[in-house]
Amino acid sequence: MGEFDLIERYFKRPARSGAHVVLGIGDDCALLAPALGTQMAISSDMLVEGRHFLPTVHPARLGHKALAVNLSDLAACGARPLAFTLALAMPAVDQAWLGAFSRGLFALADAQGCELIGGDTTRGPLTICITVFGEVPVVDGHSQALLRSGARIGDDVYVSAADTPLGIEGPGDARLALEAFRGHLSLPQQVLERVRLRMEAPTPRVALGLALRGIATSAVDVSDGLLGDLGHVLQSSGVGATIRTDWFAANLIAGDAQSAQVNGAFSFEKAEKLVLQMVLAGGDDYELAFTAPPALRDEVQAAAAQSGTLALRIGQIDADPGLRLLDAAGLSLPNHFGSFDHFA
Amino acid sequence: MGEFDLIERYFKRPARSGAHVVLGIGDDCALLAPALGTQMAISSDMLVEGRHFLPTVHPARLGHKALAVNLSDLAACGARPLAFTLALAMPAVDQAWLGAFSRGLFALADAQGCELIGGDTTRGPLTICITVFGEVPVVDGHSQALLRSGARIGDDVYVSAADTPLGIEGPGDARLALEAFRGHLSLPQQVLERVRLRMEAPTPRVALGLALRGIATSAVDVSDGLLGDLGHVLQSSGVGATIRTDWFAANLIAGDAQSAQVNGAFSFEKAEKLVLQMVLAGGDDYELAFTAPPALRDEVQAAAAQSGTLALRIGQIDADPGLRLLDAAGLSLPNHFGSFDHFA
Repeated sequence: MGEFDLIERYFKRPARSGAHVVLGIGDDCALLAPALGTQMAISSDMLVEGRHFLPTVHPARLGHKALAVNLSDLAACGARPLAFTLALAMPAVDQAWLGAFSRGLFALADAQGCELIGGDTTRGPLTICITVFGEVPVVDGHSQALLRSGARIGDDVYVSAADTPLGIEGPGDARLALEAFRGHLSLPQQVLERVRLRMEAPTPRVALGLALRGIATSAVDVSDGLLGDLGHVLQSSGVGATIRTDWFAANLIAGDAQSAQVNGAFSFEKAEKLVLQMVLAGGDDYELAFTAPPALRDEVQAAAAQSGTLALRIGQIDADPGLRLLDAAGLSLPNHFGSFDHFA
Repeated sequence: MGEFDLIERYFKRPARSGAHVVLGIGDDCALLAPALGTQMAISSDMLVEGRHFLPTVHPARLGHKALAVNLSDLAACGARPLAFTLALAMPAVDQAWLGAFSRGLFALADAQGCELIGGDTTRGPLTICITVFGEVPVVDGHSQALLRSGARIGDDVYVSAADTPLGIEGPGDARLALEAFRGHLSLPQQVLERVRLRMEAPTPRVALGLALRGIATSAVDVSDGLLGDLGHVLQSSGVGATIRTDWFAANLIAGDAQSAQVNGAFSFEKAEKLVLQMVLAGGDDYELAFTAPPALRDEVQAAAAQSGTLALRIGQIDADPGLRLLDAAGLSLPNHFGSFDHFA
């Protein structure tokens, strides 16, 4: 099967009469017609086998995740998804793999109203690059995009989570699954299944990002770890923050991590440190961390409820640069939680 | 050096007050503000080491080429380049490589007024994915984009070329260089240098694409081979074409190919076949193939002159489906020239 047949069979679908997509797959370029009074939000992510996903992942979940991590960037900007391009390098044409990958990809794309408009396929080490396009309104000359630079002294700091039939989803889940797959710890089967789904098929918080427009002062998606990504917000905004660590115990998010058996010499200190590490620096969960003025606490909770998520208030923006951690007793905790770096 | 330092050092540059780029590198998304009455043309290409470029290529030329192949897609649509994203996987952080790669990339980007607005870097097999954004005006409700589907019966068929101090550039050059690097043929040193530059640092015909708006009825860039890419135009337009093969001899484009010594058993037939193969099916030259009504021949030549290129008239669109080849004597030639397929 050649390149053109492959695109025709797995990636080209009947054109939909989208108001924005003038021309989709099949020409040298795709054409988008942005709506009047809007800006276009653009983000691009590359996923490499062995680095961003395990070779054992089901291709349908991989198709979902490749788009989800990009949609999460749109969510963090409060942008409505419109369209995306896909560039795909594969070692060989595997039709079963392509069928499942495209099924997972399009299931999420359709759920989010995001159309595949072009891209590239080639032979090479398995690598997926998606570039996503979203729309942000401009109201009275002001862009409604949520930026990293908008946090103000006195703002509350939040992180998103969700209460689902499988349990509470929140920061730390994906890293817990990764460490289990690496053999560093063991989890009860039911917990493993839940966090594995979070690692392999995360839910981008698009609806929450849209609901937070005009309420949140800044936002970032937690791809590299909560404290690390919050650090980007603090730096861009020229502020500092004090973050409490009691919220995740109170919200049971860390319950699953606490059920983990650390392989090798187990100790209570190790398990406790593990929970902190997962939740504060795990990354790859694609929750949103954001800030909003205390006067809008009700509006934040309404936005979360409306989008089927939880908004956990975890701290406050202050003037002192840097990030301070407080434990459940209000005592200072050393912050030695690194951020995930794709070159570390 | 970590991911963030790397981006800061090699890819982040002082923001320019572009009318279109509202927000560049550094947030979850970039923000573009398209001009009123325009559409956005989007294209994405992935380059894999060993497949699209040789490991020996100079990184500055690779930086140029990675952007050039994308700009060529904008050129084929008649779109004005605005911005691009870059996703880059590298086996290790090599600062000398990054310095040269970004230098080559930005030299072309600056020459074309195209700003890097975001992307991704990660560890992995050397892979470059660029997504490029261009602008096409809409006049009286009609998009000025050049599409593959616009060729009409009776139109002339053209391919671009250029008369440069190093010799005539045209279709076939890049393949000639590739076959020389593969050891399949030998070239005089001066010829090798010229065609190597064409393979490693092709010139996207952006100015020609812009000048052809309102004149050409269809266009495509010759990335996979002249006849193969013309075939896409014929199929999209529901027409056929008759192409003469005397034009490239008359225009001396094939002079360099004729100087090639076919390695192994040399024969006159082999050399002649080689020239045809290079020019008609070589690919990777990023010339434009396009169609225009005979009534606009002067306008086509003016557009070419204005953009520093040549527009070679090579045939005519007709009603019979498929593509017919005529030799210099006007006799039918069998068309067994395959197109380049990244999965073949």
